[in-house]
Amino acid sequence: MNKPTSQNAFETPNVTTGPLPGSRRVYTHPQAAPHLAVPHREIELHPTAMEPPVRVYDTSGPYADPDAAIDVEAGLPRWRTERIMARGGVEFCEGREPTPLDNGGATGKYLARAFPVRHKPLRATTFPSPLMGEVVERSETGRGEATSPHPAGSGDPSTLPIKGRGKADRHPVTQLEFARAGIITDEMIYAAERENLGRTHALPDAAKNLADGESFGASVPEFVTPEFVRDEIARGRAIIPANINHPELEPMVIGRNFLVKINANIGNSAVASSVEEEVDKMVWAIRWGGDTVMDLSTGKNIHNTREWILRNSPVPIGTVPIYQALEKVGGVAEDLTFDIFADTLIEQAEQGVDYFTIHAGVRLPYVPLTADRVTGIVSRGGSIMAKWCLAHHRESFLYERFEEICEIMRAYDVSFSLGDGLRPGSTADANDRAQFAELETLGELTKVAWDHGCQVMIEGPGHVAMHKIKANMDKQLETCGEAPFYTLGPLTTDIAPGYDHITSGIGAAMIGWFGCAMLCYVTPKEHLGLPDRDDVKVGVVTYKIAAHAADLAKGHPAARLRDDALSRARFEFRWEDQFNLGLDPETARDFHDQTLPKDAHKVAHFCSMCGPKFCSMKITQEIRDEFGSARAPNSVDEAEQGMAEKAREFQEKGGEIYLETKE
Amino acid sequence: MNKPTSQNAFETPNVTTGPLPGSRRVYTHPQAAPHLAVPHREIELHPTAMEPPVRVYDTSGPYADPDAAIDVEAGLPRWRTERIMARGGVEFCEGREPTPLDNGGATGKYLARAFPVRHKPLRATTFPSPLMGEVVERSETGRGEATSPHPAGSGDPSTLPIKGRGKADRHPVTQLEFARAGIITDEMIYAAERENLGRTHALPDAAKNLADGESFGASVPEFVTPEFVRDEIARGRAIIPANINHPELEPMVIGRNFLVKINANIGNSAVASSVEEEVDKMVWAIRWGGDTVMDLSTGKNIHNTREWILRNSPVPIGTVPIYQALEKVGGVAEDLTFDIFADTLIEQAEQGVDYFTIHAGVRLPYVPLTADRVTGIVSRGGSIMAKWCLAHHRESFLYERFEEICEIMRAYDVSFSLGDGLRPGSTADANDRAQFAELETLGELTKVAWDHGCQVMIEGPGHVAMHKIKANMDKQLETCGEAPFYTLGPLTTDIAPGYDHITSGIGAAMIGWFGCAMLCYVTPKEHLGLPDRDDVKVGVVTYKIAAHAADLAKGHPAARLRDDALSRARFEFRWEDQFNLGLDPETARDFHDQTLPKDAHKVAHFCSMCGPKFCSMKITQEIRDEFGSARAPNSVDEAEQGMAEKAREFQEKGGEIYLETKE
Repeated sequence: MNKPTSQNAFETPNVTTGPLPGSRRVYTHPQAAPHLAVPHREIELHPTAMEPPVRVYDTSGPYADPDAAIDVEAGLPRWRTERIMARGGVEFCEGREPTPLDNGGATGKYLARAFPVRHKPLRATTFPSPLMGEVVERSETGRGEATSPHPAGSGDPSTLPIKGRGKADRHPVTQLEFARAGIITDEMIYAAERENLGRTHALPDAAKNLADGESFGASVPEFVTPEFVRDEIARGRAIIPANINHPELEPMVIGRNFLVKINANIGNSAVASSVEEEVDKMVWAIRWGGDTVMDLSTGKNIHNTREWILRNSPVPIGTVPIYQALEKVGGVAEDLTFDIFADTLIEQAEQGVDYFTIHAGVRLPYVPLTADRVTGIVSRGGSIMAKWCLAHHRESFLYERFEEICEIMRAYDVSFSLGDGLRPGSTADANDRAQFAELETLGELTKVAWDHGCQVMIEGPGHVAMHKIKANMDKQLETCGEAPFYTLGPLTTDIAPGYDHITSGIGAAMIGWFGCAMLCYVTPKEHLGLPDRDDVKVGVVTYKIAAHAADLAKGHPAARLRDDALSRARFEFRWEDQFNLGLDPETARDFHDQTLPKDAHKVAHFCSMCGPKFCSMKITQEIRDEFGSARAPNSVDEAEQGMAEKAREFQEKGGEIYLETKE
Repeated sequence: MNKPTSQNAFETPNVTTGPLPGSRRVYTHPQAAPHLAVPHREIELHPTAMEPPVRVYDTSGPYADPDAAIDVEAGLPRWRTERIMARGGVEFCEGREPTPLDNGGATGKYLARAFPVRHKPLRATTFPSPLMGEVVERSETGRGEATSPHPAGSGDPSTLPIKGRGKADRHPVTQLEFARAGIITDEMIYAAERENLGRTHALPDAAKNLADGESFGASVPEFVTPEFVRDEIARGRAIIPANINHPELEPMVIGRNFLVKINANIGNSAVASSVEEEVDKMVWAIRWGGDTVMDLSTGKNIHNTREWILRNSPVPIGTVPIYQALEKVGGVAEDLTFDIFADTLIEQAEQGVDYFTIHAGVRLPYVPLTADRVTGIVSRGGSIMAKWCLAHHRESFLYERFEEICEIMRAYDVSFSLGDGLRPGSTADANDRAQFAELETLGELTKVAWDHGCQVMIEGPGHVAMHKIKANMDKQLETCGEAPFYTLGPLTTDIAPGYDHITSGIGAAMIGWFGCAMLCYVTPKEHLGLPDRDDVKVGVVTYKIAAHAADLAKGHPAARLRDDALSRARFEFRWEDQFNLGLDPETARDFHDQTLPKDAHKVAHFCSMCGPKFCSMKITQEIRDEFGSARAPNSVDEAEQGMAEKAREFQEKGGEIYLETKE
């Protein structure tokens, strides 16, 4: 495992490889598509556990697989291209030629090296064009949305009434279009297999676990079938962010009825960081569990940085295109135009960005609603658009020309992440008129995007005290037709700069429980500086905690398997297993070794809290030895009776004399 | 500021002194008792803020006051002794002579040095005995509990019908006894003044803030009067842990209708740590906000360690006496006797311990209820008692002789912290029969303790997934007559060893919101090792976040003042103010400086996230300049109209030509 050692813009990014301690990457082949190799992570336990390895969701990509040849200069294998071509409706195009402005005009030693390979981009073909290849599977129960232009179950996408309604005459290529057509794609099968961790049927306890949880009206299934994924996408309740130009992707699904996901933000800025650091951070973020990564780079070299990230990323990559568009107009928000923005969307869509944050809900009339806020507009994209609206005294071009944006994104299957440009920047501003006015507009735009066949998720706040979190979730579900919610935290108090991973981890766990589909991490550096490698790890692990706590509380049918395995390891003093089953085996081991550094202690049946002489776990073992084999009593009365019998037995056998307490 | 540098058992403990950055310790004098000097912390803001200093609750004691002479060898000033003597009913006694066994038989170089000064202990006098001195104040509205033996408002404690009901003939000395008698003590006045941060009347927004929150039936007042404190104590809904032998104390109140408090655990163990480290950790823990500290020492030198801690502690100190009792019988649980236990209680009560964890709810019939658990009994005290019960096949002596324990504790006003020996050690075991059977017993014992005039709080779990937390709080309130709940976390998932401050901070914030009065911290080392100094700080800060997030969500009338002040500082780029208003100014500053180390940047109106060219905060300022002086619009329609007018004005004035977007 290596750390990056240089700031030189021409170095090959150095990334961390190899499995986590005790783990190995394994692959299963879905029944519905045996050609797919879907990755999971298996944690091996000590032989004394007498338990099979514990399988967990794996986001780390080929980097964790010692058998995978990693060449950052070549990028990851582009395995999806063949499948995408096979289902047809796409063609290679010359694509937009990169310009110096794409990298902010960086030249000479300031220009980061371009990624060595240039791939021709794919896009949806225009009609008429022959449909190529087979369709993976066809559902009998496909259904359309109320707002869908596509009748349910019509099957062959080439026959869909895609014309009219102001939409371009393009072949359908988005997961939403396929889902509505009743077509189950490879991506859906892949995502379903991951959700089930390769299981072929529901767990015996699935129904019980679901009943034990509180899901606030979610419909988490006992077992995730590809058809369930398709149906959730068709309804707009889930998305698979999967740009056809990001064939390196290991597809995953984001939706309230699936495992809660987390996003890690990376990105260089005008003042700090380099391409190498960002590629390394991406690989580092997914190693610890990042489900998606957003590249929020600003300043120079945005294009080249993103290309290196995309070509090496097995997880969906999101961006905020307005950041780059702003660089193209020299940082002057009022100089932005729709054309510059649209050109940036095409540039990034051709590179393979999987989802775009678009702040189309920041409408002109909402801008003054923020004037009396304690912290005004804190979203960068939101304030860019507010500035533009204010400078021109005119409605946002993102809102006015939203359908054109849809058509660009649809041609590559870039998912919308409708940005909350007016999210509160302090708990004082939470749930105010500006925030909820924008959310209503996002609901309106969701339906427009769906109408254009685009996948949509909705971004949410921000800074919200605990008692106001649920209202956010409920309003989003209602306003946005159950499109997946994707929130930043929320931070539950403003008083802890340096610890906002924690102030927000609290809010994230809660909103995840209430129904949020993806949690955007917050690192300890929030509000203070750019996260470094350590911050990225702490942010990811904190948000894995929040997401998993949410899964447990919802009653996800399999979530508690890992908790229970770790608890058994803890109870049985299998230290190595306890470390390895945790989210961060290295830190756990390091903490243990600080108090009890000797290797012998890793097998010792005690810990540093109580020492070797007395151990509560040991006493419990004695209780278990005494009572464990019998059926546990059902009530206290029964237990009392049982104890009396025990005592009688004891006396009848002439057992040991009671040690009388001195009175 | 100094760090301890030596492990030598004969060194003077080295503690951290001096104020936090930008802060100073100030004192106010309550109207009801002007002789009291009640501490607060004031955070000075930059002159450009045009705001008064922000006052926050201060737990740090004289250590943060540069004018206080700190001499760890002498201990803190024993200011309460005079007041306690003045209200009468107490007398100095010779006290129990320390024995070598009190320090686990440590001798020679292994024996930690005794604290240099030995103070004679106070205890309640037996009848008949003259009442000494005045009573601080007498309430007209004092009321008794249904279970109280003392009629309300009878005033003079010497006339109370203390005889009978199996209780010893002692003068009342506990805060509960005074409260029931309608007497407002210095401690109640002091605690009220702290809760109000020295304010003399309710804030203008108090009612609004309360109405904005969700307190789940709590009765947080707009303003805390000494009478309110008295009434809450009389009802058993709050306690002031304040042993008459801990006169160094700065009294504080624990209850659902007050600010949520946090406890920090320290303590050496058989394998690690020394006296110096523990005294330093205590001072360090309160510096960052610990409201109480538990000394959980085991192994040798327990007595001497505790004496050093108590004599230097301005916060209540709690212990688990069974830990020391176990040491006295060589670590063999079954050799414990009531006499050894009672002797340990007296030893510790005479030293000044403010609250005892007593695991009297671990009853014999509940032991087998734990046999089928994933993690059995994980409470150390709980498993000691389970082991004893099991070995003797007999009911717990703590339960059987609970009234005798009450009488010992009452004579010094040691508060009960009724221990949850059967708390779940994994989310798998949460809310099970064993846990709730014990909780019901704790409710039964609460009423017995109240009947003996003792103050009581109840300990709670542990490991509980989010959806099962509220049931714990609700059941505790119902079962234990609203006695304050004091929980360890709870941890909301088991899969993150090394990060259990976070897994538990989530649960702590939630249960604090639901009504928990005090949150026992969990450090990153939980399950792995003993916390060091850094762990203590991270644990305390995490729990301050949880407690404050809970206060905000409950709608505490003043909690948001600090959030709003910090948010304004953030918005206005007052970096120093943002650092200093935070829970940990040092870490915030350090994180900032990692990206932008130059001093100039501390006054720069930008940050490292966006850089100097573009700044969302700056744009908001422009919006505010444009709209801020006018009344903010009440609706989107009104805002739209306002914008149209603005645009007309602009055109009429021949304002700048719109930059047309290219279409």
